[in-house]
Amino acid sequence: MVEGQSIENLIRVLMAFPGVGRRSAERMVYFLMIDPSKRISVLTEALHAVSERVRRCRTCNGFAESDLCSICSDPRRDETRVCVVAEPRDLDAIERTGIYRGLYHVLDGLLSPLDGIGPRELSIEQLLHRIQNNRPEEILMALSSTVEGDATTSYIIDLLKSTGISLTRLARGVPAGGSLEYLDTRTLSQALTGREHIVEQ
Amino acid sequence: MVEGQSIENLIRVLMAFPGVGRRSAERMVYFLMIDPSKRISVLTEALHAVSERVRRCRTCNGFAESDLCSICSDPRRDETRVCVVAEPRDLDAIERTGIYRGLYHVLDGLLSPLDGIGPRELSIEQLLHRIQNNRPEEILMALSSTVEGDATTSYIIDLLKSTGISLTRLARGVPAGGSLEYLDTRTLSQALTGREHIVEQ
Repeated sequence: MVEGQSIENLIRVLMAFPGVGRRSAERMVYFLMIDPSKRISVLTEALHAVSERVRRCRTCNGFAESDLCSICSDPRRDETRVCVVAEPRDLDAIERTGIYRGLYHVLDGLLSPLDGIGPRELSIEQLLHRIQNNRPEEILMALSSTVEGDATTSYIIDLLKSTGISLTRLARGVPAGGSLEYLDTRTLSQALTGREHIVEQ
Repeated sequence: MVEGQSIENLIRVLMAFPGVGRRSAERMVYFLMIDPSKRISVLTEALHAVSERVRRCRTCNGFAESDLCSICSDPRRDETRVCVVAEPRDLDAIERTGIYRGLYHVLDGLLSPLDGIGPRELSIEQLLHRIQNNRPEEILMALSSTVEGDATTSYIIDLLKSTGISLTRLARGVPAGGSLEYLDTRTLSQALTGREHIVEQ
């Protein structure tokens, strides 16, 4: 933008967001500048509220506006199941399916030694304590099907395999709407290996 | 999002921005929540700086961080030409071409009687005063080629046609990279009507 160091700086701050390029950032700033005193204060107040009120849930490490998040404090949830996810957004994605009614545990990332992320950088210790105290029946590992996701699943499964708790992970196979001709070999191999009986016997 | 009224509210505020849907807004909030105290304060400070420092240029009504914008206060600009644009973003678009070296006038919109935008809602009075005081040689109308843009150009041209100032507007025709087969009839009509001699005689 031609004018204004402070506008240019705001554009650069917005460009740090994922998926926001220079043009999108400029459009956002132009939008704010249509009625700057009102629009900037609405946004600033919303940011302030998040900053003041959102913390991590004491139990599951997800986002919460009080000590416990709305899922951990909901008596209708199935306490015998804990679904382990990497990020709060993964929790939201699973909630949107409406299928899972258990609790969650948010690791806050995946093991990635090259990036300096070891077990201590994740909330694995907190997960182990929780399992010791509450003895769930099932731990469902819901991590991405990537090198880091698989390594993190293996690491946690190793820690838990002697507990006698049922350890599960998300099914792997053909994604909904996936055409066979476009599937990568790895996905297709996993779909073949994990093939299901059409009529349960 | 499952958790947090304040997060949901921030998502809704972000969704008001042009081009930002629910998914983009959620991704932006997740990004902030990776390191909320730092990232929210960086964004809040950038917003605060814009809110405090950016105003409208006394002369051209564009964005400025002091009484005059950097273009109006630049002695190298050609003061004999004034380019009339609807919004500050149009000014930036013309600056990016690097071709125009005159001054600007930002109307702050286009005439649109159905939306309650008449001449008084735009900075037309300010433009007339400026022309009276400075007597430029050329007024270049650089408004969108839409019903509102054309109506606004006609309205301003009517006010200025007796002044003897050279009144021009942007050329109309085939856009760069435009294939004839995809051009709408109106553009093609304008390109035909305004056809140019290949060798100037």
